[in-house]
Amino acid sequence: MRHFVSTVDWTRSELQGILDSAHRLRSAPVSRALEGKTIALLFLNPSLRTRTSFETGIFQMGGHAVVLEPGKGAWGIEFKEGAVMDGEEEEHIAEVARVLSRYTDLIGLRAFPLFQDWEVDREDRVLSALTRYAEVPVVNMETIVHPCQELAFMRTIQDHLGAPDGRKLLVTWTWHPRPLNTAVANSGILMGTRFGMQVTLLIPDEAYHLDPYYLETAKRQAKESGGDFSVTTDLEEGYRDADWVYAKSWGALPLYGRPDEEARLREPFRHFIVDEEKMSLTRGAHFSHCLPLRRNVKATDGVMDSPACVAVDEAENRLHVQKALMLELMGGGS
Amino acid sequence: MRHFVSTVDWTRSELQGILDSAHRLRSAPVSRALEGKTIALLFLNPSLRTRTSFETGIFQMGGHAVVLEPGKGAWGIEFKEGAVMDGEEEEHIAEVARVLSRYTDLIGLRAFPLFQDWEVDREDRVLSALTRYAEVPVVNMETIVHPCQELAFMRTIQDHLGAPDGRKLLVTWTWHPRPLNTAVANSGILMGTRFGMQVTLLIPDEAYHLDPYYLETAKRQAKESGGDFSVTTDLEEGYRDADWVYAKSWGALPLYGRPDEEARLREPFRHFIVDEEKMSLTRGAHFSHCLPLRRNVKATDGVMDSPACVAVDEAENRLHVQKALMLELMGGGS
Amino acid sequence: MRHFVSTVDWTRSELQGILDSAHRLRSAPVSRALEGKTIALLFLNPSLRTRTSFETGIFQMGGHAVVLEPGKGAWGIEFKEGAVMDGEEEEHIAEVARVLSRYTDLIGLRAFPLFQDWEVDREDRVLSALTRYAEVPVVNMETIVHPCQELAFMRTIQDHLGAPDGRKLLVTWTWHPRPLNTAVANSGILMGTRFGMQVTLLIPDEAYHLDPYYLETAKRQAKESGGDFSVTTDLEEGYRDADWVYAKSWGALPLYGRPDEEARLREPFRHFIVDEEKMSLTRGAHFSHCLPLRRNVKATDGVMDSPACVAVDEAENRLHVQKALMLELMGGGS
Repeated sequence: MRHFVSTVDWTRSELQGILDSAHRLRSAPVSRALEGKTIALLFLNPSLRTRTSFETGIFQMGGHAVVLEPGKGAWGIEFKEGAVMDGEEEEHIAEVARVLSRYTDLIGLRAFPLFQDWEVDREDRVLSALTRYAEVPVVNMETIVHPCQELAFMRTIQDHLGAPDGRKLLVTWTWHPRPLNTAVANSGILMGTRFGMQVTLLIPDEAYHLDPYYLETAKRQAKESGGDFSVTTDLEEGYRDADWVYAKSWGALPLYGRPDEEARLREPFRHFIVDEEKMSLTRGAHFSHCLPLRRNVKATDGVMDSPACVAVDEAENRLHVQKALMLELMGGGS
Repeated sequence: MRHFVSTVDWTRSELQGILDSAHRLRSAPVSRALEGKTIALLFLNPSLRTRTSFETGIFQMGGHAVVLEPGKGAWGIEFKEGAVMDGEEEEHIAEVARVLSRYTDLIGLRAFPLFQDWEVDREDRVLSALTRYAEVPVVNMETIVHPCQELAFMRTIQDHLGAPDGRKLLVTWTWHPRPLNTAVANSGILMGTRFGMQVTLLIPDEAYHLDPYYLETAKRQAKESGGDFSVTTDLEEGYRDADWVYAKSWGALPLYGRPDEEARLREPFRHFIVDEEKMSLTRGAHFSHCLPLRRNVKATDGVMDSPACVAVDEAENRLHVQKALMLELMGGGS
Repeated sequence: MRHFVSTVDWTRSELQGILDSAHRLRSAPVSRALEGKTIALLFLNPSLRTRTSFETGIFQMGGHAVVLEPGKGAWGIEFKEGAVMDGEEEEHIAEVARVLSRYTDLIGLRAFPLFQDWEVDREDRVLSALTRYAEVPVVNMETIVHPCQELAFMRTIQDHLGAPDGRKLLVTWTWHPRPLNTAVANSGILMGTRFGMQVTLLIPDEAYHLDPYYLETAKRQAKESGGDFSVTTDLEEGYRDADWVYAKSWGALPLYGRPDEEARLREPFRHFIVDEEKMSLTRGAHFSHCLPLRRNVKATDGVMDSPACVAVDEAENRLHVQKALMLELMGGGS
């Protein structure tokens, strides 16, 4: 049994196998490959694409998704070991994981950071607790990385560029009214460097560096894959000659848990929006984003509605890659 | 590709085709006609019948419904063109519509008016925005009209009266503790006049006139169909000789967005409740209502529990007509 | 047509038939026995196991569950007869029950007590109202008894002990930060006495006696089945020589609706937690609990993680017994 919690646990060849399977599934979407199988999707945070694509995907292969929202329709969950549970939570992840493992064949989890203490959040404790107790495969539906999105991202790059090796990928920070999760940015540099791309991370200020674990892993992976990884605060350097622009906003880690201070630091950087002028610096780059995206805040209408924007294709690929992933994890073959 | 946003876009003959198909589906409810198909149901407001009937209906034909509640389990949605999205909404309808079009084969939307400015709400902007971007058929699950309910209403009339032409339909306002949506009343007069009925709209005061668009469309349709459309504030005139009584409450449009003033205007009209005395003025009329209905406020227990009440039959017909509609829109034939 | 609202309405032989069917379903979980069938699950309170096991269970037999949360995604429901519905509720159970009976083949209801007045709550009015109007079988998914849990509990006892007759069952109260529902405790003594067990109810104080109806029914059933029923406040007497320990917390009925007073009464009894020391008094008893369970409050980690704990097996059995129950009620045979 194998979990899918981060792409770093999977080889490039294994990941490519899932991407190839996803491509095949596009031309034969409906089957009975997972007949009678069920998956439980635990959402601690909102979702549109993830939920719809998993629910549709398993249905198209003969299975069924049960969508659970702990703390709303389902009981609140305690994730700490040894907790004396006299607070709000009614149930421990140990029981949730074990019970769902009896009812279903795979458990997906979305658990965003709590944005109080990065030293805590960076340990991804909710997901770790779930994998500790689950007796069926666990899929990360976004915690502090977003590996399903990574698969869709790379599937889309390959759809449009063919082999990704040596192509320049810009992962650019953008402004947003709130300090968001670093997950998609972490995942962007992980997947780009894994597949031999020349990855540039563009940030508005040194305070927006990602966690050292991801920076170092990106460097190591770039070395292994023949790619490259660099960081810049220079907009022109970032966009110049890019083949792919991937945008995301996130909060500055040194001010984690202090949203008012972070907002003041962020305020001068509204011009990091992806617009047509910046895109014109690229080598005719495609633009993608994991969605949801705030129009005219992260990217202009002009970019979003241009042929360069493939964010919707990428979202569609969530469906195909997750179907391939479910087949891989639930033993249905493809 | 065709949307189902209002019955005014469909001919009487096309609508009758759906009603006939619904009748056939009653005797053969389970099939594989929509095998592998999925629909997304976007609920911006509560639902019991609509959700259960669509979800059950598509399941009975081999498909699957994904139920999404933007702003609750799913991201909040922006519907305005060109918006600088630095408020609460995380995602634009352009992306929602395009992405759901990739995952599913039909999108349903329930989006009640906001009850602030009727000049805005009467434009049905949320639904318009969705149809602008959707690449699959869109079904109106109640906005400022309720066309699925219209189909169920007319199916039920035909079940009980046979040909509707020339029969007297009373659409009566009733009191309710809050100013409600005019959608079902708009739809009642549209569907009655479309099918040649003698439609009387009974209101307690001129302030309760429906929007001129619906009044004029009803007049025009009555002329075309050989029916009739009139408005009265006289209870006896309204009920006298009716073959069908259809009740709904709504708020006075001139006081739209001013609920306290509207409540004072409404207060004297509690006696518009449908009761046995009023029903005795009719020609043995059937009574129906779209549900939910507040008992002993909109209609008495005596009426609700009498053989004249066919509201539950009408609710059942929601299932059958929506299945027929899905077959029509998703190309499965019937 | 038959409802499943309490095990007292079913003979021991009928209940054993469901348990036997559940056992057979474990080895053949996937079928088409309920193809095209739908069930509506009305949750007025949170759920993890109940929802997931019903939804998974009907899917595994070819059917589909529609999950409804009145007051959240669905309209609020009025349950009183003859109510003038000018308050918050938009819809009467009469219509909800009749309409869902047209759309689906079975209705499940979870409706916890309101914790204001036990004289009201003990009448189980919501469930009674539903069964009064429903035209399809109704299943109690926990109100003031929890009969589906009873089935799983007895299935698990038989899995581990074989014939339950004459074995000592301890149903012990435990501390909890809030005054909870007596349903599972009521159900525990009902099911134990029905199946010939020597049932001891352990409470910390006379104030924690269950409602006389359940105490008397347990006594009567014990007499009929050759079992026994007694109540004690002595921890050692309760645990001594037990074959099975079943734990639950509940609020003192004499202080029902007065949570602050109840909390003061409850405070000295934290030591009623199920721990290894107490378990060592038993005859190598198994431990089970309906879940959710607050670790280190109701039972220690040591007990929960010991081989004696079969709570997860019992939760799994919810799936199997409910599938057997659905087959029984929906006429699919097994």
